[in-house]
Amino acid sequence: MSLINDLQWRYAVKAMNGKTVPQEKIDYILEAARLAPSSSGLQPYEVFVITNKELQEKIKPIAFDQNQIVDASHVLVFAAWDNYTLERIETVFQATLQARNLPSDTMDAYKARLWGLYEPLGDAWHANHAAKQAYIAFGMAIAAAAEQKVDATPMEGFDAEALDQLLQLDQKGLKSALVLTLGYRDESNDWLVNMKKVRTPKDQFVTELA
Amino acid sequence: MSLINDLQWRYAVKAMNGKTVPQEKIDYILEAARLAPSSSGLQPYEVFVITNKELQEKIKPIAFDQNQIVDASHVLVFAAWDNYTLERIETVFQATLQARNLPSDTMDAYKARLWGLYEPLGDAWHANHAAKQAYIAFGMAIAAAAEQKVDATPMEGFDAEALDQLLQLDQKGLKSALVLTLGYRDESNDWLVNMKKVRTPKDQFVTELA
Repeated sequence: MSLINDLQWRYAVKAMNGKTVPQEKIDYILEAARLAPSSSGLQPYEVFVITNKELQEKIKPIAFDQNQIVDASHVLVFAAWDNYTLERIETVFQATLQARNLPSDTMDAYKARLWGLYEPLGDAWHANHAAKQAYIAFGMAIAAAAEQKVDATPMEGFDAEALDQLLQLDQKGLKSALVLTLGYRDESNDWLVNMKKVRTPKDQFVTELA
Repeated sequence: MSLINDLQWRYAVKAMNGKTVPQEKIDYILEAARLAPSSSGLQPYEVFVITNKELQEKIKPIAFDQNQIVDASHVLVFAAWDNYTLERIETVFQATLQARNLPSDTMDAYKARLWGLYEPLGDAWHANHAAKQAYIAFGMAIAAAAEQKVDATPMEGFDAEALDQLLQLDQKGLKSALVLTLGYRDESNDWLVNMKKVRTPKDQFVTELA
């Protein structure tokens, strides 16, 4: 199989059948998200994995009552940093330098330049920029799920502040950005399963500036 | 090969050797981006493909003089809608309904609800939300390039307004969001090629709320 085949196979599943996805497939999907690239390698996001039905029931109304929240095997919440700080950047860079056996001052000039750019932009810009990075990892998780023939529903439709409160993300300096439910399609109850996949035609999507 | 292997293989190439990527691989990468999911299926972004060396030379200073801009085989610019309008939404929904042979009023209630949410949020929020969707497609393009063993450098480091002006994106109602250079690594000149890939350790990246 190929990524293109996987992307053609997948769709935003509207009804899930409650069956459990094996742990090794969940681990694979999370590993794809973990390996995603991010701006300056900061990976300013984390993933929360929910398999607790009571918690899923509490999230459901926060996610506009979408049934997949409770009928999914696993609910992933992608949460991004609520801001950049010199300390957060320093922590990531030092871990990178240590893993590469490089002197701890190797990235100092880069760090100063980056912070010179980021600091004046403020927390709202920071949070938004961090959330954007999470979208790349989210894409990788979606692709990985499709490769593993695990169904998924990407969701932006939820009350982020309510979810932050429920999961106490604010106490961790995080904001929920995206939800991905993982499970298996319930074909008999999914209105979307047999619908044609529609995308912008290639000649409108791609413009060659040769 | 698997997506995980592909993601382990890839890295943000810092030096490219100028060799040309075959058109079928470029088409494959663009097709992966085209198949990416987006919020409400709006796909509020397009991709511009640049293979013109003079144009690449003009982009280089806009992209903080990164050499990959000129040493790449192809430079992709992901540009997102500068706002949502009822007309833009209507155009996408009507194309969807036509492709699915559904009555043209099928999505009217959904459209009204969506526009009720989007309209009060304003153009800045719209542009940002549209750009976020482009990050998912960007992730798919990065994964597809890795699968095809095409090197890539994901870039956010460029002056978006200057690039918009150069490519006249504002006249198309678009804003540049991301750049992806495609080509082949120049191993002898790339300081990053032999560095260990570093990511947030799994136990810090994933939290199970069981």
